[in-house]
Amino acid sequence: MEEEQLRALLRDLDALKQRPDDPASIERMRERVVAMMKPADAAARSKIKDMSAEVVDSNPYSRLMALQRMGVVENYERIRDYSVAIVGIGGVGSVAAEMLTRCGIGRLLLYDYDTVELANMNRLFFRPEQVGMTKTDAAVQTLSGINPDVVLESYSLNITTVNGFETFLGSLKARSSHDRSTGVDLVLSCVDNYEARMVVNQACNELGQTWMESGVSEDAVSGHIQLLVPGETACFACAPPLVVASGVDERTLKREGVCAASLPTTMGVVAGLLVQNALKYLLKFGQVSPYLGYNSLKDFFPTMEMRPNPQCSNPACVQRQKEYMASKPARDAAAKAKMEAESSAADEGPIHLDNEWNISVLDDDDTATSSIRSSADILPEGLVRELPDADSYPEPPAPVSSVAIDDDLEELQRQLDALNSS
Amino acid sequence: MEEEQLRALLRDLDALKQRPDDPASIERMRERVVAMMKPADAAARSKIKDMSAEVVDSNPYSRLMALQRMGVVENYERIRDYSVAIVGIGGVGSVAAEMLTRCGIGRLLLYDYDTVELANMNRLFFRPEQVGMTKTDAAVQTLSGINPDVVLESYSLNITTVNGFETFLGSLKARSSHDRSTGVDLVLSCVDNYEARMVVNQACNELGQTWMESGVSEDAVSGHIQLLVPGETACFACAPPLVVASGVDERTLKREGVCAASLPTTMGVVAGLLVQNALKYLLKFGQVSPYLGYNSLKDFFPTMEMRPNPQCSNPACVQRQKEYMASKPARDAAAKAKMEAESSAADEGPIHLDNEWNISVLDDDDTATSSIRSSADILPEGLVRELPDADSYPEPPAPVSSVAIDDDLEELQRQLDALNSS
Repeated sequence: MEEEQLRALLRDLDALKQRPDDPASIERMRERVVAMMKPADAAARSKIKDMSAEVVDSNPYSRLMALQRMGVVENYERIRDYSVAIVGIGGVGSVAAEMLTRCGIGRLLLYDYDTVELANMNRLFFRPEQVGMTKTDAAVQTLSGINPDVVLESYSLNITTVNGFETFLGSLKARSSHDRSTGVDLVLSCVDNYEARMVVNQACNELGQTWMESGVSEDAVSGHIQLLVPGETACFACAPPLVVASGVDERTLKREGVCAASLPTTMGVVAGLLVQNALKYLLKFGQVSPYLGYNSLKDFFPTMEMRPNPQCSNPACVQRQKEYMASKPARDAAAKAKMEAESSAADEGPIHLDNEWNISVLDDDDTATSSIRSSADILPEGLVRELPDADSYPEPPAPVSSVAIDDDLEELQRQLDALNSS
Repeated sequence: MEEEQLRALLRDLDALKQRPDDPASIERMRERVVAMMKPADAAARSKIKDMSAEVVDSNPYSRLMALQRMGVVENYERIRDYSVAIVGIGGVGSVAAEMLTRCGIGRLLLYDYDTVELANMNRLFFRPEQVGMTKTDAAVQTLSGINPDVVLESYSLNITTVNGFETFLGSLKARSSHDRSTGVDLVLSCVDNYEARMVVNQACNELGQTWMESGVSEDAVSGHIQLLVPGETACFACAPPLVVASGVDERTLKREGVCAASLPTTMGVVAGLLVQNALKYLLKFGQVSPYLGYNSLKDFFPTMEMRPNPQCSNPACVQRQKEYMASKPARDAAAKAKMEAESSAADEGPIHLDNEWNISVLDDDDTATSSIRSSADILPEGLVRELPDADSYPEPPAPVSSVAIDDDLEELQRQLDALNSS
């Protein structure tokens, strides 16, 4: 870093030899020298006790607290109460961790078994001088420098091993070191293989833990994110892929001398969409997408919604489904009470009295109240939406029997064909 | 020791301010700087002459070169021939610069007049220890450490001043220091105000320079990117905003103690979409989006296409439009020749013979051939597409007279209403 400053100084001096009377250039050199004189650790900021909305250059939270003034988030500072676990600190997970760190999340739990290589440099986050460090150590090094207010816990382990899984499960349940809470509020899966996803799925089904899954294709040009709420949505085992590694280690399928492609763009977009949905989920604004795809070649973003499969091969999933069905009367009553409270609140005038900027996003009113789409919003037959129509909340007859997954896929294909031919 | 050298440098610089024409003093400073430079830093990687596809941990380009094997990009290494200018190194521009740097772009030109503040830390890229540095210096510091193969040129100046604009325009036309080419291949506008966008628009219209514009809303939850090809698409002045600062400096409109909100997620997504489209444009794969919006509250991504306004207030735009119309016969002939060449090539079998992974993305065939949507693809009446239908290339009668912008907006609103009510 300092090396670069010195090289820049040399360039400036050489330029000055050609054109001596250049006060601006001298001033710039002065700044470079001053920047190099700062002791390294004095530069990193100290911890901040309370998030302030004060608009001064020295406040790292002013632009986030402004979300309250803008009427987007009701109470931004609640983000400090939340714990998020990120499994897989690669091209997506590392960027997701940085985004949450800069947003001032309370606690981050990071899991990875790998080390940083130069071959990772085509994605954001890791730097060449971190080659050889474990990804979790390198992440803690970078993230703690960016925001010392975030409590970081790193686990350099393989969750697909017996011991790794035990530690993983235990850490997800453990009491937080930074406040009195227990467990985590959300798990983000940013792994790159089927086996690890199934392990995250197993842990979250056992714990009844809401999680979000993410993935990027091996040709680097598409990706997706998905919300998984045990018992309420399809779990990762409810709709198994058509082809999986069977009886052999998935990694041995990767032939020597062949690797998947990856791009910082696709992974940055997927990480951004993932953490944006995590923020919407935690801070209760906007609508959390059940599934969102990203086809970068066409800038096409398919959405769909998958109900759980009653014949799911994962016993914990089936158990969560039973519990979810059993709690339906209580949920209906709560939804009714909430709707009544909102309709009486709506009579009292506009929600955001202090929106001094008069900024309104599309349908501002419903964004303050809706979080995850209600089950009434589930499409009864097909899976695909032609256009997001979350404005209209029709009340179709609640689906009683689930359609088998195969039928859903056929219906999806039929709808896509119809749309493409029109 | 080094601290002592830096203090001596400062003294020399202050003396030089008083008595500028002192070659001996400049030479003495040069020696001090060289003395401080460490012999070949061990941590940061050395330059790499040719991009290799070899799959080893030490190859920072293996995952990018894999795009060729996957059949996505025909010749990835061409990226080294390209120069990209990024105007505005803030929440979007800095991340765009990092993505292009990690992709191994040939040359990056960076423009910004601002310095790094703690208040910027809620977005990716800058680090607390860079507070006080100019954004361009801080960017060069970080980017050169990440990928020393990229030629970085930084301009700490305000393009909206007379002198700044002259330097800006000159640098866009100048001969590249890293190869024999002249000018830049693409300009990315990542500024945060109307005035600066109009300046980029002016420069690009004058030069006939293709550029991409990006923006994020002040409530931090939506954004957009847009492709502007002078003469071919609407320029930034063709469809002026409904309300702009008039007669006063835009910045004085920002009241004391009030700031716009921002999120690393929204800005990361917009930067990712922007650079992905820049890569598609430069490396000729997929389809470059004419306009792509991002509504993060609903994960809704509107697209549209805007033709140039023959009554545009910008004379350079009108001139480019005339040239574009005049070149139509030549373009038609070229398109016909290309189509014929492709249809005969298609008879010879599959395009990607060496796609050992058998990975196919949706409609792989057309991604290798299409870049920007052809003018024949422009919708004759409305602006919105219900679903991307780029597979079908119908040949509607070429639009002769442009519809006024107001009509287009009304038509857009009508279509949206119809879709929402269906």
